[in-house]
Amino acid sequence: MNQESETSIAPLLSVRNGSKAIEFYKSAFGAVVLNRIDAPDGGVVAELSIDGARFWIADESPEHDNFSPESLGGSTSRMILVVKDPDSTFEQAIWFGARSVWPVGDQDYGWRMGRVVDPYGHHWEIGKRLTACH
Amino acid sequence: MNQESETSIAPLLSVRNGSKAIEFYKSAFGAVVLNRIDAPDGGVVAELSIDGARFWIADESPEHDNFSPESLGGSTSRMILVVKDPDSTFEQAIWFGARSVWPVGDQDYGWRMGRVVDPYGHHWEIGKRLTACH
Repeated sequence: MNQESETSIAPLLSVRNGSKAIEFYKSAFGAVVLNRIDAPDGGVVAELSIDGARFWIADESPEHDNFSPESLGGSTSRMILVVKDPDSTFEQAIWFGARSVWPVGDQDYGWRMGRVVDPYGHHWEIGKRLTACH
Repeated sequence: MNQESETSIAPLLSVRNGSKAIEFYKSAFGAVVLNRIDAPDGGVVAELSIDGARFWIADESPEHDNFSPESLGGSTSRMILVVKDPDSTFEQAIWFGARSVWPVGDQDYGWRMGRVVDPYGHHWEIGKRLTACH
């Protein structure tokens, strides 16, 4: 949230088994749950925060055009997760069940970055911008 | 970007025809381009900002597991776009080619919100939280 402008963009990731997914994001990325709504059918919508950076998780509902990566066989967006220590966040995500797509390294576009795909099929590029004096 | 914590999440949306898509997001949402890299093959990666809220656009590359909604026949995440005036942002998006999924209205979960799908197949829920004294 940009406090000055009141404008913000937060991705909402569609998954299968939202309750389990929330536990994964808590463990893998240290996310905390800010809001959570449980529907009678077991479906869940939740707003999560990783150290102040917000995103949402919801069970898929293909009838409303909300598809999980498992249903479509791929994902149509990836998350650029900027953190202080990409190496440690990356390792933690792998430990809790994400798969390395490419390892953390210094990229020629000026970022230290790696990419994982999480157990729910969402892709995360985890990194930080490199400065002249890194 | 949460300035205090240095942690941020920005979605990167895969599209077909990234150059054209960037023009759409500029018109529809008043986005400005912060960074843009044009590849020799015509592909583009760009970081955009809507009044300080950041996201990325890139041409799809299925060989790297980056799929556009057109390629998969749906999208695996949607963007929660919080703005000061959802009605006006919604109308502007429709004017420039987005399609209404459901119109802006006061929702029982405490938001004034509507949903559009843009010409590139990405879904946006445009709204703001309602306060007791709206």
